[in-house]
Amino acid sequence: MKKLFQYNWQVREDWFRWCEDIPEEELLKKRVGGVGSVLYTLFHIVDVEQSWIHFLKTQQNLEEPPFEDYASLSKVKALSNQFHAEIEPFIQSWTNEMDSLTIQATNSKGQTATFRHGEIMQHVIAHEIHHIGQLSVWAREIGREPVTANLIFRGLYE
Amino acid sequence: MKKLFQYNWQVREDWFRWCEDIPEEELLKKRVGGVGSVLYTLFHIVDVEQSWIHFLKTQQNLEEPPFEDYASLSKVKALSNQFHAEIEPFIQSWTNEMDSLTIQATNSKGQTATFRHGEIMQHVIAHEIHHIGQLSVWAREIGREPVTANLIFRGLYE
Repeated sequence: MKKLFQYNWQVREDWFRWCEDIPEEELLKKRVGGVGSVLYTLFHIVDVEQSWIHFLKTQQNLEEPPFEDYASLSKVKALSNQFHAEIEPFIQSWTNEMDSLTIQATNSKGQTATFRHGEIMQHVIAHEIHHIGQLSVWAREIGREPVTANLIFRGLYE
Repeated sequence: MKKLFQYNWQVREDWFRWCEDIPEEELLKKRVGGVGSVLYTLFHIVDVEQSWIHFLKTQQNLEEPPFEDYASLSKVKALSNQFHAEIEPFIQSWTNEMDSLTIQATNSKGQTATFRHGEIMQHVIAHEIHHIGQLSVWAREIGREPVTANLIFRGLYE
């Protein structure tokens, strides 16, 4: 579980570096599919990871911050770093026994559902990988090579 | 680990069903990014999962079958089912202790590297989720709603 979070964080950093060579208007341009732009995708990944992990830690929901307040590469990176400092200790202290703990969540329509903690962790992992796949298509549209999605050859198991 | 494979298999089946409503020429159309078409992506996902798991089971490499022999929805589905029958028992019998086993692999350039078995399993999981993210962009290009990538609300933990 932890390795997949580490993979996501490493890939995310690679994409932040990739963004440095791209004009900000390209990063903010509305595109087909996903949540609509490169930067909004990175912002959304950061926000969803933070809000679910915060919920596991505290059973409290967080409001999504308005993207307008973070619509630049430097601001999304800063938000990612800020949230990362909050959630990394929680994830690093994860044990397999925590997978089967249960938690109840209520959505905006008032519907309540019960989840396993491990299910939420895996949902967050898959969420980021899925959206990164969308970035890889848009990278080619911009005429650039995307960041590799390979999990091997990243030194995660050394 | 097993839950993430089950997630991928369920999402893959959803995409096969999604494909049934799309003209085959759209499924085979060359697109920007990824491996180039919806059907080739599904074929590639199926092939990569099978070849890595086969390698973990037998330490033998498999050749990639030629896509020309599988370039229809029914043939890719049949290949997926055939391979699934071979690899599912291996994945279902996975235990956490197997994660740390090591295996050496040699690529086509003769370079050898050592991997953990768990690292290969996670590489295969991330590989499928990443490519499915690409399909979701192409679905919108075709004017269709993509399959949900949510891991929650799939009954995986019931």
